[in-house]
Amino acid sequence: MAGSTFGKVYRVTTWGESHGKALGAVVDGCPAGVPLTEEDIQSYLDRRKPGQSKATTARKEADRCEILSGVFDGKTTGTPISVLVWNGDQHSKDYSNIAHVYRPGHADYTFQEKYGIRDYRGGGRSSGRETIGRVIGGAIAMQVLKEFGISFTCYAKSIGPVVAENVDPVYISKNPFCLPDPNVVERAQSYLDACMERKDSIGGVIECRVDGLPVGLGEPVFDKLDALLGQAVMSIGAIKGFEVGDGFQSSLLHGSQDNDGFYMDGDEVKKSSNHSGGTLGGMSDGGQLVFRAAVKPTPSIALAQQTVDDQGNDTLIVIHGRHDPIIVPRAVVVVESMAAITILDLMMQNASSQVDALKNFYKK
Amino acid sequence: MAGSTFGKVYRVTTWGESHGKALGAVVDGCPAGVPLTEEDIQSYLDRRKPGQSKATTARKEADRCEILSGVFDGKTTGTPISVLVWNGDQHSKDYSNIAHVYRPGHADYTFQEKYGIRDYRGGGRSSGRETIGRVIGGAIAMQVLKEFGISFTCYAKSIGPVVAENVDPVYISKNPFCLPDPNVVERAQSYLDACMERKDSIGGVIECRVDGLPVGLGEPVFDKLDALLGQAVMSIGAIKGFEVGDGFQSSLLHGSQDNDGFYMDGDEVKKSSNHSGGTLGGMSDGGQLVFRAAVKPTPSIALAQQTVDDQGNDTLIVIHGRHDPIIVPRAVVVVESMAAITILDLMMQNASSQVDALKNFYKK
Amino acid sequence: MAGSTFGKVYRVTTWGESHGKALGAVVDGCPAGVPLTEEDIQSYLDRRKPGQSKATTARKEADRCEILSGVFDGKTTGTPISVLVWNGDQHSKDYSNIAHVYRPGHADYTFQEKYGIRDYRGGGRSSGRETIGRVIGGAIAMQVLKEFGISFTCYAKSIGPVVAENVDPVYISKNPFCLPDPNVVERAQSYLDACMERKDSIGGVIECRVDGLPVGLGEPVFDKLDALLGQAVMSIGAIKGFEVGDGFQSSLLHGSQDNDGFYMDGDEVKKSSNHSGGTLGGMSDGGQLVFRAAVKPTPSIALAQQTVDDQGNDTLIVIHGRHDPIIVPRAVVVVESMAAITILDLMMQNASSQVDALKNFYKK
Amino acid sequence: MAGSTFGKVYRVTTWGESHGKALGAVVDGCPAGVPLTEEDIQSYLDRRKPGQSKATTARKEADRCEILSGVFDGKTTGTPISVLVWNGDQHSKDYSNIAHVYRPGHADYTFQEKYGIRDYRGGGRSSGRETIGRVIGGAIAMQVLKEFGISFTCYAKSIGPVVAENVDPVYISKNPFCLPDPNVVERAQSYLDACMERKDSIGGVIECRVDGLPVGLGEPVFDKLDALLGQAVMSIGAIKGFEVGDGFQSSLLHGSQDNDGFYMDGDEVKKSSNHSGGTLGGMSDGGQLVFRAAVKPTPSIALAQQTVDDQGNDTLIVIHGRHDPIIVPRAVVVVESMAAITILDLMMQNASSQVDALKNFYKK
Repeated sequence: MAGSTFGKVYRVTTWGESHGKALGAVVDGCPAGVPLTEEDIQSYLDRRKPGQSKATTARKEADRCEILSGVFDGKTTGTPISVLVWNGDQHSKDYSNIAHVYRPGHADYTFQEKYGIRDYRGGGRSSGRETIGRVIGGAIAMQVLKEFGISFTCYAKSIGPVVAENVDPVYISKNPFCLPDPNVVERAQSYLDACMERKDSIGGVIECRVDGLPVGLGEPVFDKLDALLGQAVMSIGAIKGFEVGDGFQSSLLHGSQDNDGFYMDGDEVKKSSNHSGGTLGGMSDGGQLVFRAAVKPTPSIALAQQTVDDQGNDTLIVIHGRHDPIIVPRAVVVVESMAAITILDLMMQNASSQVDALKNFYKK
Repeated sequence: MAGSTFGKVYRVTTWGESHGKALGAVVDGCPAGVPLTEEDIQSYLDRRKPGQSKATTARKEADRCEILSGVFDGKTTGTPISVLVWNGDQHSKDYSNIAHVYRPGHADYTFQEKYGIRDYRGGGRSSGRETIGRVIGGAIAMQVLKEFGISFTCYAKSIGPVVAENVDPVYISKNPFCLPDPNVVERAQSYLDACMERKDSIGGVIECRVDGLPVGLGEPVFDKLDALLGQAVMSIGAIKGFEVGDGFQSSLLHGSQDNDGFYMDGDEVKKSSNHSGGTLGGMSDGGQLVFRAAVKPTPSIALAQQTVDDQGNDTLIVIHGRHDPIIVPRAVVVVESMAAITILDLMMQNASSQVDALKNFYKK
Repeated sequence: MAGSTFGKVYRVTTWGESHGKALGAVVDGCPAGVPLTEEDIQSYLDRRKPGQSKATTARKEADRCEILSGVFDGKTTGTPISVLVWNGDQHSKDYSNIAHVYRPGHADYTFQEKYGIRDYRGGGRSSGRETIGRVIGGAIAMQVLKEFGISFTCYAKSIGPVVAENVDPVYISKNPFCLPDPNVVERAQSYLDACMERKDSIGGVIECRVDGLPVGLGEPVFDKLDALLGQAVMSIGAIKGFEVGDGFQSSLLHGSQDNDGFYMDGDEVKKSSNHSGGTLGGMSDGGQLVFRAAVKPTPSIALAQQTVDDQGNDTLIVIHGRHDPIIVPRAVVVVESMAAITILDLMMQNASSQVDALKNFYKK
Repeated sequence: MAGSTFGKVYRVTTWGESHGKALGAVVDGCPAGVPLTEEDIQSYLDRRKPGQSKATTARKEADRCEILSGVFDGKTTGTPISVLVWNGDQHSKDYSNIAHVYRPGHADYTFQEKYGIRDYRGGGRSSGRETIGRVIGGAIAMQVLKEFGISFTCYAKSIGPVVAENVDPVYISKNPFCLPDPNVVERAQSYLDACMERKDSIGGVIECRVDGLPVGLGEPVFDKLDALLGQAVMSIGAIKGFEVGDGFQSSLLHGSQDNDGFYMDGDEVKKSSNHSGGTLGGMSDGGQLVFRAAVKPTPSIALAQQTVDDQGNDTLIVIHGRHDPIIVPRAVVVVESMAAITILDLMMQNASSQVDALKNFYKK
């Protein structure tokens, strides 16, 4: 059944396989009147690109986006925005070694079982390239959100055992790992070099902080802000965990430690701490939204692995080609994009919560 | 906007406030022909009840359910199943101390800001009693799932710092904490006693294991099994984190450690380990589904806390009445219920994935 | 699969069978702050009651509604509103003659084929009593819409061949047929008397006019105002046709006749005619919304009819009991209710169409 | 809010404006394993093309479709199918006369009011070219449905006052009006010639018949077969009415006339007539599905019409260019497409109605 659409009011539908003709997204429900150019989207897509570091794939990916509808005179019109990225030479590679063999840690086996057929080239729909559509949807959402003064700081919290201790937002885009802490970059590089040398990979953690949210985003009881963020983030390939605020750590805290006190700052309600990570009862509480995503190690490794083929034979597989030894750096913008989509959708959903606000709207 | 419905094919809509007349759920889309009685549902609702332990609230909650529609001659008819639980004497208490003051760690402030009005009695819609509707939906889902040989083992993985080391499924229902490990119950009891003495509370972790799932459940790319479980579980009050399989731990693993090899067991594909926790590419992979939820400490504590009232004054609040010092034991059945709803919904969604299966269906 | 919910933002879920314990609706997404009492809903439910005329069933139906959640201090809270109507003595009748025989013109056969089981008592879910949930949802929607100055005039346009020529809104509630034209009531009465004498029934047409709609309601291209009204109205049992404005008549008109010219009335855009019935491009155009629904004759007639039983035998059926010879009068409030639900849903959907309006909302 | 997606399980999302870069559709949820080529889709798109008759626009529209995803080795893979049609020279025309003036009978005014901006070139999103996405979605649905032996006969029932008396399915594609009756084509031609001479247009009626449907399609109570067909058909531009079976005529019938008797034909249940048009209780009843759509006259006429501009001035408009004097012939394939989408969606929804069927599915 259809599962390629996210959101209820701001809806992003993604499509495309790794080695098909193209990938893209249709964004439906975007408010009219938002300035939008291909460059606005491209700047986010470029963050998916491999960096200059040895730790990222050498493959040249141009990934130029093209807006096909929904924008007129430089502004969104309220009609669906279709954006496309062409795939390059999609027939160049030999896929004979994975056409009939299931790669461990990949979706080959489950796709084959579910559908009875799969586009095995480059992983097809389960490829990391699938996230192009997510980033398109996120970039457009960002374009709207920045009109509301909402901003995102998203980065690698850890690269394997190397943990960022400080957050310097400016530094994030200045290193190939999206680390926010200059002090740990060299260590991360060495660690990844060692992984690659052993033909192995490693996991990590992505952290995202969102400032400027109004209070009350999130629709109880199933479409809470943290619940939909949970779906949004967990739906990204390779993500195995999600937590908000103190997250798993809160299981070890006392109520007296975990509760955030309220106080008045002029006529504004503020919190004296932010253990909640910015949500109470599943709604934004005025504090900074803070969440983390656990990223598993890249499953494509050059070591021989035990597996089976689609004829039911045991076999070994060695995955050729260059693969990032870590997914984290390129997934940062994807996590940020899913958060932006979720938040914009909930901002639009929230607009009809009170009858007085609705009356104000129709007064014009 | 409407947020009280979960699921696409098997849809659960919950309603009701802590101290309103009643709470309940409407389950739409349940397959016809499933045996269902009030007792089937009641046995799950009873697991929400406080145990005999000192660590759970003394309040007597009968919570008898009543099936109002959708069942005929002891079987589901395919039409919506409406189930209701009456609230007892809903006007007995004095709520003057929380009517205008926001309890830290609770949803009072965010509900008030979002809607401009709130039913403050017992937390209203944000009360733990809201989960009655979830358990109704889950109990009915279980009734269907057991026809497919799918079974759940859900328990307290940890009570604050006290961690269950072994899992004895039979033991879970035999102690007031839903711990699966007889060796740690006494320690948990002492720990909670100490918390209560200090008028404080503590968090914990719930773990759930599901056996018997067919391969291929989950709809790429946004309605993946782990993504929807993430939404389902994160939407439960007090849950701050969610992880599948190795979860956050996988951020520290190498691909060679985290990948599960495949092998043939007769003509069945099996995995030699289960780091994935039973999902690959967001679809069930034939392994045991394993996930965990982090539960924050009960926010209602008897210690004085700094807060504000709805007139913008700083104030202190002391929360009276008996409150569980830990949410975990009573939330176990809620986590299990949300998992059952999610899985049944995806089992029904999956039924039309292949045209040949659909042709088989219409051949009869 | 689940089909008992209508609407995307204002969502009405109905449940209940004719002779089950109760029927009701859960309304999710209603804006907070709307005054609402049981009497507000009851006044709409009472319009479903049989009139004093000989042409309507004698059965006494109290149908008292009870609000179970979502209202506090006399106002909606933004949480789901659950409303219930108990069924009276649901076991009093003998259904042996329809338990295994399919009534022509009824849903007995299709329900049995689809679900393999059906609650045959009084038609179960396919009974006219199912509309109780629709009227609950509509009454609550009306309560919101009247805050916007939106009003409905809904009536019997024709009773068989007897057509209302004039529309006197005040007169509609003053005759048992909901006819808006005093001049034709006697003729309608005689016509229906003759039908009953022949143990037969007749169809009719319901017309609905809505004033005060803002321009722009309806979401292109599939959720247009007229499209969703089409679904809403066609989903009512016994409705076989739906048309807006000139409707089927427009198939015989020239563009020069059917187009409505625009002109300025002060600084307001007005239309010099209303052939469109108030929609252009599927959005409200500022004119009065006008639509009609064709109602088939009551299928329950006391004449012998050819049919089959569920064992595959040909047989005759004679339907006992008193049945209205026409559905129209009691369906008027149902059509009006479905229109109100559709319009409120679209008014809420429309609130986030332009980014500037959304910015205004969050400025407060 | 988002309104460009139709269907719940088989979901079609359309995008594109008349004079944007391209138009297309993303079809999500199509079952895997269905043979599909661009030619399969193209043959339906070609039916949208203007005929050789004088009555259809001269504009050359190539409208070649391109499949971008979701198909591998000639078969659907279960992943979203993205299909695109490039627009030709989209900047060739001068739109100064409609950029600021609202055409009567068109959506110019309502789009402007709703969104505050509109792509006025060729009507933008409200152009007839928007139906390209619908036909793409319908063609793919047809490709699935024909595997089940389901077939469609869709045609012009009337061209203004000229009504087809006989239905010869083979003849439909052999005349420019999609009339099924050779005897009336000449009369239709003369009638349209006269319309064009007067610079005027005319409406008509489209009829659709569907054979081979299983019993039980349609999800009570809001997603009934006739209700969703109502939405599907009414959502097409220029459609003003929809009816099933006897439709509006049934308002004049007696129950004894309108009820279809059942009888046994071997071990099959059959109906002795088909006044219902193939639906009972909103579910397919085994009879031929028959419905009609009323089409208003083309609003673009070359006669001067009274209107206003977007600055609030009264003005006259004369619409230049060649326009079809009737919409019916080119809308036939669109109506058929929307019906195919609706029916396939409901066939997939229906697959999990009974628990025994679901158990059968998972037994394999």
